[in-house]
Amino acid sequence: MRYIGKQEIEDIAVGAALLGTGGGGDPYIGKLMALQAIEEFGPIKLLDVDEVPDDALVVPSGMMGAPTVMIEKAPSGEEAIGAFKSLEEYLGKEVYATMPIEAGGLNSLLPFALAARLGLPVVDVDGMGRAFPELQMVTFYLDGVSATPLVIADEKGNTSLLKTINNVWAERIARTSTIEMGGSVMMAIYPMNGRNLKESGIHHILALEEQIGKAIRLAKQEGKAPIKEILQLTNGHELFKGKVIDVNRKTETGFARGTATLEGLDSNLGQELELKFQNEHLIAKTKERVLCVTPDLIAVLDAETGLPVTTEGLRYGARCVVIGMPCDPKWRTEKGIKTCGPGYFGYDVDYRPVEELVLEGVKTIG
Amino acid sequence: MRYIGKQEIEDIAVGAALLGTGGGGDPYIGKLMALQAIEEFGPIKLLDVDEVPDDALVVPSGMMGAPTVMIEKAPSGEEAIGAFKSLEEYLGKEVYATMPIEAGGLNSLLPFALAARLGLPVVDVDGMGRAFPELQMVTFYLDGVSATPLVIADEKGNTSLLKTINNVWAERIARTSTIEMGGSVMMAIYPMNGRNLKESGIHHILALEEQIGKAIRLAKQEGKAPIKEILQLTNGHELFKGKVIDVNRKTETGFARGTATLEGLDSNLGQELELKFQNEHLIAKTKERVLCVTPDLIAVLDAETGLPVTTEGLRYGARCVVIGMPCDPKWRTEKGIKTCGPGYFGYDVDYRPVEELVLEGVKTIG
Repeated sequence: MRYIGKQEIEDIAVGAALLGTGGGGDPYIGKLMALQAIEEFGPIKLLDVDEVPDDALVVPSGMMGAPTVMIEKAPSGEEAIGAFKSLEEYLGKEVYATMPIEAGGLNSLLPFALAARLGLPVVDVDGMGRAFPELQMVTFYLDGVSATPLVIADEKGNTSLLKTINNVWAERIARTSTIEMGGSVMMAIYPMNGRNLKESGIHHILALEEQIGKAIRLAKQEGKAPIKEILQLTNGHELFKGKVIDVNRKTETGFARGTATLEGLDSNLGQELELKFQNEHLIAKTKERVLCVTPDLIAVLDAETGLPVTTEGLRYGARCVVIGMPCDPKWRTEKGIKTCGPGYFGYDVDYRPVEELVLEGVKTIG
Repeated sequence: MRYIGKQEIEDIAVGAALLGTGGGGDPYIGKLMALQAIEEFGPIKLLDVDEVPDDALVVPSGMMGAPTVMIEKAPSGEEAIGAFKSLEEYLGKEVYATMPIEAGGLNSLLPFALAARLGLPVVDVDGMGRAFPELQMVTFYLDGVSATPLVIADEKGNTSLLKTINNVWAERIARTSTIEMGGSVMMAIYPMNGRNLKESGIHHILALEEQIGKAIRLAKQEGKAPIKEILQLTNGHELFKGKVIDVNRKTETGFARGTATLEGLDSNLGQELELKFQNEHLIAKTKERVLCVTPDLIAVLDAETGLPVTTEGLRYGARCVVIGMPCDPKWRTEKGIKTCGPGYFGYDVDYRPVEELVLEGVKTIG
């Protein structure tokens, strides 16, 4: 157990934006909400997974919807408490702790804002090790944990408690409700016990985010780009260096979907990289080859500062380094790839681990 | 208190189809479900509103969605029990009785099927005195009774418990969930007490349906069309006699919408009647004048048998009598007309009571 204060939140926010792979909600809003909650209620307890009793009830909290909407319709915090309390009341058992459901920007930080208000600890674990756009795309799902009962709540005061026969139906019904409720809602979801957490969660994810954020911060103080440190912390690979020349983005069916095109710089001169995203970056490829594919992580970093750029932050002319990082081994199983591999998102590309693709690229060039 | 057996259900089904004004779900499916439940569990207690204690919890039950979908996806009865039990559990109070929320075909009868299975009585009351397509279009809404907490449940086993800030949001969120859940769901909605029922409900509506059904049945035995008896029981007016020459119908945003055109017979020779519907018939007009407008009731009857024809049953060549009936006085208030008058449905027509419009027509012709 340790306490999370303002500096830790600042670092986690940066790391979360990176593991958010361009999505997961705007980390800036999540950071402000967590910082404000610490200002009001003091530092927040962060528990290691091993500190959670096996039969303790843990309820992940977060935002569902399109981040592009979230920016214009910031959550007040009240709706998160509403969702959480409704679920606790329904389950008839006291909640022991909350946690992020995903390691995305906003959703890594919102549990801290909620925990501070409710006097609960946060557990250092999530169900993605990154961000993903749909509710069933969590490691808990791979192990048969139910997403429901779940509660979604909007800023107006409407709540919906869903119980579904499986997690894909939870995603479908919650998604259409989210759109009707204004495009983004707060949710309390995947209620589970300590045993589920230990078996199916991705451990120490907040610590990793904090390390990434700290590395970027220290590098900035020393006036250098921290790309090397980031790659070391995440076992990542540099895929491409270039500038954004085109972004095609629209919000449809509750998601921010699109394609960004980067023109190569330095060693990539004359090449073009295409990034496909649905809230998160899902595929990075040049005309010749695929460089990295979901569920492996693709992050776009500012070439100068190393700071992660969200899909909403992609601007014409921005100079970026695109990196690829291996996902958690749980995602590289058959069910994992079926759940959030390229085929699920409608891309006619086979999943291959980023380290294999990179090695092949080196061979081709070599 | 009296018992409802098979003959009463048969008669109620016919009367319900008539007050369903073309919508309210297919009465045939509702009738079969109620008859089967009586076969299994015996006759069902029907209570008068005055027999319900002021503080007793009454929960209306019914179907939400497009009747055109319902025909292909008949409810099993299990989803209704699921919805009902979820709401009872949430409210933490035993339910005293159920009732129809509307006097539509299916929704007049489904509460009987549910009541038989649960051993509950049905109350002789509803919240429309007819059928309407949206959740907030009930007299309880006019008096400030909340539609939520409500539960909707599909035949697959998914349920959603909604709490909303007002009944229009209940309608919006429940409607999109219904569409996602397959187009039709069972619901337990507008939980209320005996006092609410007495003040805001439309009393003796099932008795009226039964009287209408009985009149049609007896007329058939005597080989005559019971139009006169129907008009007498409902204070109604014959608006038009003709045959269907065109039906334009589509299922969109969860509703069966469309227009039917009838060519005049007998005294209407050479005239055309246009019927506009959204699940229910909403406007009847000729080229020259408006004959009847929602919230007043428009029913299409088979010219020979007097049997009501649903909007799905409108077929090219069918010979029909179109009648108009005054709605309950609660609907003729400013809030009532705002809630379900022609303006709400997007028609540029002012509401005027059917008896006024008819009188004017007689004067014009005279």
